[in-house]
Amino acid sequence: MIIQLDTSIDGDKKGRIEAALQSLHIDFYPVQTQIGHYFICTPKQEFDIRGIGHLDGIKDVHRVSGAHKMVSHKWKVDRTIIDCGDGVRFGDGEMTIMAGPCSIESEEQIEKTVEVLKRNHIKVMRGGVYKPRTSPYSFRGLGMEGLLLFYKHCHRSGIKIITEVMESAQIEKMLPYVDIFQVGARNTQNFNLLEALGKIDKPVLLKRGISGKIDELLYSAEYVFKSGNEKLILCERGIRTFENSYRNTLDLNAVPILKEKSHLPVVVDPSHGIGIRKHVPQMALASAAVGADGLLIEVHETPEKAVTDGQQTLNFMEFERLVSRLYALENVL
Amino acid sequence: MIIQLDTSIDGDKKGRIEAALQSLHIDFYPVQTQIGHYFICTPKQEFDIRGIGHLDGIKDVHRVSGAHKMVSHKWKVDRTIIDCGDGVRFGDGEMTIMAGPCSIESEEQIEKTVEVLKRNHIKVMRGGVYKPRTSPYSFRGLGMEGLLLFYKHCHRSGIKIITEVMESAQIEKMLPYVDIFQVGARNTQNFNLLEALGKIDKPVLLKRGISGKIDELLYSAEYVFKSGNEKLILCERGIRTFENSYRNTLDLNAVPILKEKSHLPVVVDPSHGIGIRKHVPQMALASAAVGADGLLIEVHETPEKAVTDGQQTLNFMEFERLVSRLYALENVL
Amino acid sequence: MIIQLDTSIDGDKKGRIEAALQSLHIDFYPVQTQIGHYFICTPKQEFDIRGIGHLDGIKDVHRVSGAHKMVSHKWKVDRTIIDCGDGVRFGDGEMTIMAGPCSIESEEQIEKTVEVLKRNHIKVMRGGVYKPRTSPYSFRGLGMEGLLLFYKHCHRSGIKIITEVMESAQIEKMLPYVDIFQVGARNTQNFNLLEALGKIDKPVLLKRGISGKIDELLYSAEYVFKSGNEKLILCERGIRTFENSYRNTLDLNAVPILKEKSHLPVVVDPSHGIGIRKHVPQMALASAAVGADGLLIEVHETPEKAVTDGQQTLNFMEFERLVSRLYALENVL
Amino acid sequence: MIIQLDTSIDGDKKGRIEAALQSLHIDFYPVQTQIGHYFICTPKQEFDIRGIGHLDGIKDVHRVSGAHKMVSHKWKVDRTIIDCGDGVRFGDGEMTIMAGPCSIESEEQIEKTVEVLKRNHIKVMRGGVYKPRTSPYSFRGLGMEGLLLFYKHCHRSGIKIITEVMESAQIEKMLPYVDIFQVGARNTQNFNLLEALGKIDKPVLLKRGISGKIDELLYSAEYVFKSGNEKLILCERGIRTFENSYRNTLDLNAVPILKEKSHLPVVVDPSHGIGIRKHVPQMALASAAVGADGLLIEVHETPEKAVTDGQQTLNFMEFERLVSRLYALENVL
Repeated sequence: MIIQLDTSIDGDKKGRIEAALQSLHIDFYPVQTQIGHYFICTPKQEFDIRGIGHLDGIKDVHRVSGAHKMVSHKWKVDRTIIDCGDGVRFGDGEMTIMAGPCSIESEEQIEKTVEVLKRNHIKVMRGGVYKPRTSPYSFRGLGMEGLLLFYKHCHRSGIKIITEVMESAQIEKMLPYVDIFQVGARNTQNFNLLEALGKIDKPVLLKRGISGKIDELLYSAEYVFKSGNEKLILCERGIRTFENSYRNTLDLNAVPILKEKSHLPVVVDPSHGIGIRKHVPQMALASAAVGADGLLIEVHETPEKAVTDGQQTLNFMEFERLVSRLYALENVL
Repeated sequence: MIIQLDTSIDGDKKGRIEAALQSLHIDFYPVQTQIGHYFICTPKQEFDIRGIGHLDGIKDVHRVSGAHKMVSHKWKVDRTIIDCGDGVRFGDGEMTIMAGPCSIESEEQIEKTVEVLKRNHIKVMRGGVYKPRTSPYSFRGLGMEGLLLFYKHCHRSGIKIITEVMESAQIEKMLPYVDIFQVGARNTQNFNLLEALGKIDKPVLLKRGISGKIDELLYSAEYVFKSGNEKLILCERGIRTFENSYRNTLDLNAVPILKEKSHLPVVVDPSHGIGIRKHVPQMALASAAVGADGLLIEVHETPEKAVTDGQQTLNFMEFERLVSRLYALENVL
Repeated sequence: MIIQLDTSIDGDKKGRIEAALQSLHIDFYPVQTQIGHYFICTPKQEFDIRGIGHLDGIKDVHRVSGAHKMVSHKWKVDRTIIDCGDGVRFGDGEMTIMAGPCSIESEEQIEKTVEVLKRNHIKVMRGGVYKPRTSPYSFRGLGMEGLLLFYKHCHRSGIKIITEVMESAQIEKMLPYVDIFQVGARNTQNFNLLEALGKIDKPVLLKRGISGKIDELLYSAEYVFKSGNEKLILCERGIRTFENSYRNTLDLNAVPILKEKSHLPVVVDPSHGIGIRKHVPQMALASAAVGADGLLIEVHETPEKAVTDGQQTLNFMEFERLVSRLYALENVL
Repeated sequence: MIIQLDTSIDGDKKGRIEAALQSLHIDFYPVQTQIGHYFICTPKQEFDIRGIGHLDGIKDVHRVSGAHKMVSHKWKVDRTIIDCGDGVRFGDGEMTIMAGPCSIESEEQIEKTVEVLKRNHIKVMRGGVYKPRTSPYSFRGLGMEGLLLFYKHCHRSGIKIITEVMESAQIEKMLPYVDIFQVGARNTQNFNLLEALGKIDKPVLLKRGISGKIDELLYSAEYVFKSGNEKLILCERGIRTFENSYRNTLDLNAVPILKEKSHLPVVVDPSHGIGIRKHVPQMALASAAVGADGLLIEVHETPEKAVTDGQQTLNFMEFERLVSRLYALENVL
């Protein structure tokens, strides 16, 4: 059960509601986000909602069966729209493309990518500065130095930045320069990181775990929301299966299911989803057709020379061709 | 290596080629299909192709590295088109929709379905008469009796029939009434069945195994081809993964990969692919966008009353709405 | 619900029971095996068992909740013992080792293997004569010719034969020479084959499917039992997972679970279970420790030269060392 | 390639070796652990080892092909023994049992568990104080307060403590009270945590990821080692598969493979491995038979009342019975 409070509720009224819940022996969690105040109740048994519903300061009471609460579609029927400013929105019915290199490598690389994005009316650039790598001997990203370069060029061009954060300790220093924090597939169940991201007021894009169940992704989103941040975007990026003809198995079933279960926007990363450059465009088109709210695509001037993920990265020409097909497709859907 | 022979080659010339191969100690398999004569060679070591290429009766010699031979894209650059007659074709660039109930249940059911198909310009009806069922206590299909009813109504309406065959012993009696033999996911590696289907001259639609690898599907197709039947259609229908929010995980990565590796048409079964009725249309749209040559969709007048698979079956209205969206999408792609 | 009938029941009494079931609108399946007569009932709703229990010819009535009936532990509390004669038994508390080459290759190979088995008091020899192969270009076994050789040498030495059957059409000719019919992992859900094996009076060893669920294996066993053959042995042989460091992932969890759910003996194939020769002995020991009723082990005089599966086959010395460790282990357990 | 340095090497000599490597254009990583100094080299091409091997301060040069270096069996042929003091050792050929509740709940619970452990000559107690939970609404552990209680009772009884650490920020405060830091399956690829654990001088038990590949586990161990901590124990705890008859699929194949590839001790957690209380003992026996260096077993006085994981936790009587069977088994193996 979710008790939604008046946004202007004062401490006294809040206290009286808490007291009422305690007197009914109902377990509850107070949640305060950028947008609202809530009590999430996980009662052990049925109780009469009328004992609470009339109290001052309560805007609405929602019964939410099932294990997920705040992220559930059951209490919030309208789809959530994440507004990043400057016309960048997720979940409003239009598809938002995010593109850029796997790793930020150099100032020149950023400049050229920004130019391509602008020419194609794309307003969000991706690029990793902290890279989680299976092997400790692989390139680990340019770190804050790379982020500052990234920011310099994007900021002046009105391009938003999405980049991965790997641990709580990085959040504070990254905060001024990042528009959307990405949580990678290896960190989907890094609960300390999720809670730390719940305490900031920037959108969080949460990737599904490498073998993450739909339910687990929703629980992870619940962690962020419960900690105070409603600005959440879910991302399907391929799962691990027995099939070894491709890097991951893009699971587009996840898109309609996540939209059925949750009110949050759902985007797809076709680059990781198949991991093979020449097939990325088709998977991107399929992602658009299935109803994704956005796409996360790896692009590089010369994928052959990219320090990471070149095998699944489009070059500029391939990317521009794809974008025009995506726009055409979107017009029909 | 594939040695493609003149279609009019006589026994003498064939014998001379065989002798030449033997003298070079090359393992070979003679293959004769509806369309061509071939020798498939699996030499243990490199050899000089010139020792053979000049012989009379040889049309072409193709080097095919990799384990798959006849089904490989490497020797047959053009995509194969399977022509079922009356304008029903797979692989010609247009998408062919096959639709109908999971199981044939009654004459009335067939009639009503045929009517819907005709109204929507769909020329292939699916419907099971032999049903592979996990439990021996489940409905197993109407058998030949059902097939005769199925044939009666489709034949007079110019609708082609696709239906599943479960064992070699069924082929002969089914042959006059079936236009496309479907091999189900549990029989993808039933090699005796595959070889038996290699000996007939009707198209075979081969479903990917429940946890079938791409390579295994291609090998299974190779079994049919090698036994003499080139008329093959591959079908992605969802794989088994850890995810239990849906019946199967539709693996659309398989479509571009199969088309890269093989010259055969590739269709998708979105009904089994997600197994949830309300999400089947979106998965069908995604399948079209990814480049499928056809779709296999479960449709029933009243899915709630279907004896099998009702939970993933569209009703007539849902189906017609989907078809019009598919046609619109196809116009853009 | 399972109605167990008197073994000497006559047609009249049977008819009266059938009539009683019909009058109660209970769906039922008559089953007659080597050992007993049964009616398996799958009633759609609760009913009063007393309306039937008193009828003449009924030995016992067992309520069996759950989907599996005849193979379930719920009605048959004692473990089933499969007696193959000459002291070869499965499920009596002792572990029965079956060993031999993947494929029967030659008379000499059989003779040498028989000798090793005899020296180690092993009474069942495995060896494939019909080989299901992923690729149509691989060795497919010596067929009936191989089986006759196999039989000649085993029969005179008092060694039992277990070998794989691939399709119904092979059963009749194989029947005189085979002691245990093995159904391979690719045929676990070949329901026509299962039903055909239900009609003979020889034990059937049923391998778990390549990605077969526990429930599916039990349903497949149910197919054989329901068709008339109670002599069933279940076999864990490794499943398909994401891990590619070994051929399959041996799932020893399956042993206690299958024994909990079913009354049938459960054996393990550690050779396929890990697929790496040097690690087979440890997996065999683990299989013994977990409570397997038997083991299926690949052995060859010179594994390096075996036509199939050499990479997972023990040589004679390795095998003999393993057997003595297994016997020592069994004494403690 | 691993260059092992003299333990007493001084800065000058080290500098000369670095200079030599640089002059040969070899990428290298200096590593300093509790036990040794190393340069790990990842040269891009072959080079003449003699240009380096003669330099002062070099103890040995090991060629290590393959991607894993420090954890590889290729350079360190002897198995590593992790000595926790007071006779608690991993990897010396004897099996070390670690047991205790999933979560530390109360002082009384700790006392009773300690008593049972002592009676059975078990010297390591497990117990979680920081619990990673899928849902944010689940019990999250008693935290430092619980750890202090845990320490108080174990310390005075000579029992070692193994407990899970969830993020870098927790390490410092936990350090005085923990004997072995456990990294859970959700954190196997939390690289920041791994690097932080590389900087302390306490053993780290690293669980395989929920769908972690063998190679990934070894890479994660490499992270810890490279950061300075050689005291590593690997743990198989079941993987995620399609099978849903048990919580996880215990993958005992992993034990011989990890011991083949790495010199580190390998333990097994049969409680998570099957997740079903009554079958834990058999999986523990199988783990012992396959060669595990230790076991991690969940035990609670009244599993039915345990706040977490009760369904897979043994009660004291079941545990003691298992321990005596394990000791008997170990004597034979």
